[in-house]
Amino acid sequence: MKKLILLILTLSGILGCRDNRLSDGIVRLPVPERAAQQEDMLGFAAEPIPVVRVGFVGIGMRAMGAVESFLNIDGVEIKAVCDLETYNLERTQNILSSYGRPPAAEYFGKVDSWKELCERDDIDLVYICTDWLTHTPIAVYAMEQGKHVAVEVPAAMTVEECWQLVDTSEKTRRHCMMLENCCYDFFELATLNMAQQGLFGEIVHTEGAYIHDLRELQNNPRLSEGSAYVPGEGAGTSPHLAGYHDRWRLKYNTEHTGNPYPTHGLGPLCQILDIHRGDKMNYLVSVSSGQFGMSRYAKYKYGDDSPEAKTDYALGDMNTTIIKTERGRTIMIQHDVTSPRPYSRIHMVSGTRGFAQKYPLTHIALEPDGHRPLSRPAMDSLLAVYEFPFVTEIKELARQVGGHGGMDFIMDYRLIYCLRYGLPLDQDVYDAAEWSSLVELTEISARCNGRPVEVPDFTRGAWNKGAGFSFAYAD
Amino acid sequence: MKKLILLILTLSGILGCRDNRLSDGIVRLPVPERAAQQEDMLGFAAEPIPVVRVGFVGIGMRAMGAVESFLNIDGVEIKAVCDLETYNLERTQNILSSYGRPPAAEYFGKVDSWKELCERDDIDLVYICTDWLTHTPIAVYAMEQGKHVAVEVPAAMTVEECWQLVDTSEKTRRHCMMLENCCYDFFELATLNMAQQGLFGEIVHTEGAYIHDLRELQNNPRLSEGSAYVPGEGAGTSPHLAGYHDRWRLKYNTEHTGNPYPTHGLGPLCQILDIHRGDKMNYLVSVSSGQFGMSRYAKYKYGDDSPEAKTDYALGDMNTTIIKTERGRTIMIQHDVTSPRPYSRIHMVSGTRGFAQKYPLTHIALEPDGHRPLSRPAMDSLLAVYEFPFVTEIKELARQVGGHGGMDFIMDYRLIYCLRYGLPLDQDVYDAAEWSSLVELTEISARCNGRPVEVPDFTRGAWNKGAGFSFAYAD
Repeated sequence: MKKLILLILTLSGILGCRDNRLSDGIVRLPVPERAAQQEDMLGFAAEPIPVVRVGFVGIGMRAMGAVESFLNIDGVEIKAVCDLETYNLERTQNILSSYGRPPAAEYFGKVDSWKELCERDDIDLVYICTDWLTHTPIAVYAMEQGKHVAVEVPAAMTVEECWQLVDTSEKTRRHCMMLENCCYDFFELATLNMAQQGLFGEIVHTEGAYIHDLRELQNNPRLSEGSAYVPGEGAGTSPHLAGYHDRWRLKYNTEHTGNPYPTHGLGPLCQILDIHRGDKMNYLVSVSSGQFGMSRYAKYKYGDDSPEAKTDYALGDMNTTIIKTERGRTIMIQHDVTSPRPYSRIHMVSGTRGFAQKYPLTHIALEPDGHRPLSRPAMDSLLAVYEFPFVTEIKELARQVGGHGGMDFIMDYRLIYCLRYGLPLDQDVYDAAEWSSLVELTEISARCNGRPVEVPDFTRGAWNKGAGFSFAYAD
Repeated sequence: MKKLILLILTLSGILGCRDNRLSDGIVRLPVPERAAQQEDMLGFAAEPIPVVRVGFVGIGMRAMGAVESFLNIDGVEIKAVCDLETYNLERTQNILSSYGRPPAAEYFGKVDSWKELCERDDIDLVYICTDWLTHTPIAVYAMEQGKHVAVEVPAAMTVEECWQLVDTSEKTRRHCMMLENCCYDFFELATLNMAQQGLFGEIVHTEGAYIHDLRELQNNPRLSEGSAYVPGEGAGTSPHLAGYHDRWRLKYNTEHTGNPYPTHGLGPLCQILDIHRGDKMNYLVSVSSGQFGMSRYAKYKYGDDSPEAKTDYALGDMNTTIIKTERGRTIMIQHDVTSPRPYSRIHMVSGTRGFAQKYPLTHIALEPDGHRPLSRPAMDSLLAVYEFPFVTEIKELARQVGGHGGMDFIMDYRLIYCLRYGLPLDQDVYDAAEWSSLVELTEISARCNGRPVEVPDFTRGAWNKGAGFSFAYAD
């Protein structure tokens, strides 16, 4: 029946389309009904937790930086760690010991050892940095055990998983924050503040990306034995920490196309655009180029006759997606991890009064001189003026502890701060769902010649309830 | 019947789409059959014309630079000029006289005075720089009078007009070259040469744009009385030449959305991608933001209660279009003429071995160091090495005569050179049609929530006949 309705709607859209009238014709996935008594999590704040007790699941690459962050933040105890490799557990214990902290309980040996960690009754927060496909199962299980959850990007790999996160969070009244660290980079935060103060006027168009050549990283079979965690470098960018366990990222990218990793570019833009806090993403169109780079690299690395060179990789080298919002703004998002290009997340904001862009050249231009970028000193002054107070407070420590230049620390700091004071988290479960939903939605569109696909309203009607994005502060 | 077939095709596409299989569902416009005895114009060369006799239609803004170019090129005579304003004719005669040339015959007084110019028997080439809507009617009439045609961008405003140009050129065996000057800018030409030499490897993704704040220019009612042609500045960029006759551009943009001006970004990329010379554009998806900037500017300029402020402008501020080619490459094209932003045509080329981008920062990165842009001196050396010989030969004169930094002169030089030696022109009628077809195709897609729309094969099956784009040279 649902399919029939979809068909009729789409059909009427087609006829309208040829008549040049505004038509529909958008592919829609079903929206599950909210269970009785289940309420939304907008503005949700949990009871304050003076000392946040953390358990880590997956400590190979990204989480190692969070351990370092947490050891520099008051009111955190690292209680337990879980990983598939005992080597990573050892590294963690060494760091704890170097800070004079007690060792953490260790979980390993089974693929679901993480369940036992989640079941402990002395943990408040489960911090999940595993491979993409286990993010949602672990997050859901942890919430069901009464734990708050912080989960690496993307939080979910399918729209169905996005709904699982939303429903579990709403049902259990536990936080589910995606660890979108790029929301905490300095330029992104400053432009968010500028946008909120009206410096760009009405924001019309934004762009973000994840353009990062990972050909070597995703082909490396595992952590090299001699590798060591390098404080301040952030994991994943360091040549010392090269590889994904059992090449899981390469495997995913062999089977899927579209944009499997959309949130680094999208997250900061959605905060600027007040997505589900006054605006919402309505639909997207997504087109992937053919696949050229992965095959070429496989030939180079493994030889022309290797199984790798003969593999049929699904992921197009470049995916470009355009999203249209309810208020008529557009977001352009790109993904390319297989081309030799300089790194870029673009981070561009264009409004009726001004313009800012981070990559490849950080520049800002404002009316009445919108055609000419501000001089470097003028831009630096402006960025200083629009620095959020909490950034000013912790930026020195953040840069010292590091993690992608400090943004990882700021994220971890805000997470613990909000939990300790019982405040709403910066990123709620709807952010996690909306931003992650692009993984599947872009693949549907890209496989259908760029057909428009609806972005579900994961708030189920409450997207216009809030009054814009804001950071919560204790009195 | 055609509509029914379209419907069935699209319908089966939708069902396939939900199954995640590769499906179609692309909106298609009808392709008219080629008349009997009519042949394609691929590689067409006309008889050599030792002295090219030119008539200009529309001499208000852009053509004034071409007059200056032609007066600096051997083997050209300016025979006649036509304009709606006698003031422009006077300015032309003054320039001719300052070069010691005889005056040109003048046509004016009627909206179709250009017909008489086209009917003269002492003209080889009609050079058309009128408003957008008269490009195709004048070009078609001129070809029917046996004249070669050079026509400003876009050459056509509808797909039907594109077919008129193609059919008329094929029937009359006359050249129809669109004056896409950006194909002749220095960085664009160098990257074309690099691409042809394989420096970027297999090209995967490209980007172009027309991002140019025209709010003031398109709101100015006409040329200001005291304005003067400024040699070397190029028309349209000079504050002295402000305005479109009767605000025709504003009127068009009031009634249409999508990307009405796609060719400056697209042209150079299509040459690099060998479009209709080994690859072809298959379909596009196009999304426009809402309209914010034109209304805001109208309020500022004319007052809140002015008719201009209350006008319902159709053109979205930012249009983003993604094109997929037969060989699996993608092209991203943008249009924004109403936002305060620095000027940009992007011009980005990304391949399996290298990367180049012009705006906002001119940089090139190549394997094995693809993550790091070349230093400025290294890039400059590379650009010098990949300069086409004809550019080296004329660049000093080009920069001296000017016109958008010299590219207009290079374009006019190549046009006259090819005509004098009886060579195929750099841009054929299929380029004109393909690039201009985006005007209507993007509007169809943008009005249909980004639905994919087919880009017609204007060669009617011969797109794979040629062996790549090349410049023709006399022995």
